[in-house]
Formats: sequence, structure tokens, C-alpha cells
Amino acid sequence: MKKIEHVGIAVKSLEKSNALFAKLFGAPHYKIEEVASEGVNTSFFKVGDNKIELLEATKDDSPIAKFIEKKGEGIHHIAFDVDDIHAEIKRLKAEGFTVLNETPKKGADNKLVTFLHPKSANGVLIELCQEIKDDIKE
Amino acid sequence: MKKIEHVGIAVKSLEKSNALFAKLFGAPHYKIEEVASEGVNTSFFKVGDNKIELLEATKDDSPIAKFIEKKGEGIHHIAFDVDDIHAEIKRLKAEGFTVLNETPKKGADNKLVTFLHPKSANGVLIELCQEIKDDIKE
Repeated sequence: MKKIEHVGIAVKSLEKSNALFAKLFGAPHYKIEEVASEGVNTSFFKVGDNKIELLEATKDDSPIAKFIEKKGEGIHHIAFDVDDIHAEIKRLKAEGFTVLNETPKKGADNKLVTFLHPKSANGVLIELCQEIKDDIKE
Repeated sequence: MKKIEHVGIAVKSLEKSNALFAKLFGAPHYKIEEVASEGVNTSFFKVGDNKIELLEATKDDSPIAKFIEKKGEGIHHIAFDVDDIHAEIKRLKAEGFTVLNETPKKGADNKLVTFLHPKSANGVLIELCQEIKDDIKE
């Protein structure tokens, strides 16, 4: 794993939280992107080589809506940047982690992503992500 | 803010979680440090230029013990690296954030640290940290 790619934060209102985090970082979000398959709108802030991703539910059965209902707004997941997501999935399965998407899927921000179940990872929802380049086959 | 310095994760057993996160990262923690004033034992893992800090309570009234009692094990805080913690405290107070330690205190890993109250930051406990060098006055 190369670095913390981003930390994902569940918010009720992207508009309000974009304003709040712009104050925190002294700079606004640099993009907004909907991930319809997950039922979320996302926005991204740069902090050096890392990012903060805000996540707002777009439908009632979105994982983010369920998270906020259960735990309130707050940190939702940590994403680690990997070179070869398929190799990492294989390695982490062998180490006993529960991989939620054995075939990585297209996430926000031009990434192939998968998640590790929090029950296998100390209560932490962990995302692995690999940047999609032209020569990578999904 | 220069980067995500670390993400802090509350755990019940540092020993068990050190073994788990060593499997996750494919490398062991590189140090263990007690912060007696906070009632925590910590361990650190490197992930590129970022770190993961595991936190285990050493007493019943430790903030980590209370966090786990309320929310279970999981992500506890995000720490951002700053060049001038005093200037950032001043700036963030002016922006309306609640700064928990207006005079930064000595944290783990040779840092001056302060925290922003989650109620002022979308449910997220945010730490600011600045590396202590010989020429910095506390």
C-alpha cells in the first residue's frame, strides 16, 4: 500500500459540508462527482498528496444514509492507494480479511475499488483503490 | 495543512490489532509509545508518507475507553500535519471551529497537537499536529 489515498466522511448536506471543509482547509473542493451505483454524491478536497472525500446519500437505501442513521455524520472509511488491486485482494483474502468486492468495481475519481468488511478489520471500513489507466483491464 | 499525518484507530487490544494491521500492510508497526496524560498506549504503522496510529486505553476513564464503550472499535480521528500550529489555531478559531486545546500540548510521536471538537467539524474529531524541533517553543 502506497499511501492513504483519501479518508471518506459521511455528511447530511454536501453543500453545507463543502462550505465547512473549505474553511478547515482554507481552499474549496476541487470536484463533485455522483456515483449512482452507490447512491452517493461526492466532493473532493486536496490536502497535500492526500484527499478528503465527502459523501452525501442520494437515496434512502444508500450505504451513506444507513451509516448516518446508525452512527451520525462522521468518518466513514479509509482508502489506501495500491499498485495492483487484484494482487492485494488475493493477498488479503489469504490473510483472512473479508473482501467485499472480489472483482473490483469502478468507484469515484477514476479508480478501481474494493472494500474490506469492518468485521474483519477492527471495525474499520477499508477501501483499496487503484487508479484506472488505459492499459488496465477491469 | 500539508498532508494527512495519520488516522487514529481505537482498539481494545494493541497486541491483537498490531498483528492484524501487520497483515493488512504486509509490515509490522515501527514503534509503540505510551501517552500517559491521555491514558493511551499507541502503535504506529507507516503507509508511504502517512501513518496509522492504533490507540488502546490504559485506564477506564481514558477517552479511548469511552469511545469504544459508546461506538465500538473503529476510526477515532484524522490528524493533519501543519507548519505552524499556533497560526492554524488562530485561523480556525476565527473560522468558527471549537479548538479543544488553545495551547497545543505534547502528543505522541514528538508532536505538538491540538484537537477540534467534532461538533464543530461534522462529527469528525480532527487533530492538528506539528513536529517538535529544537527551535520551537512550546
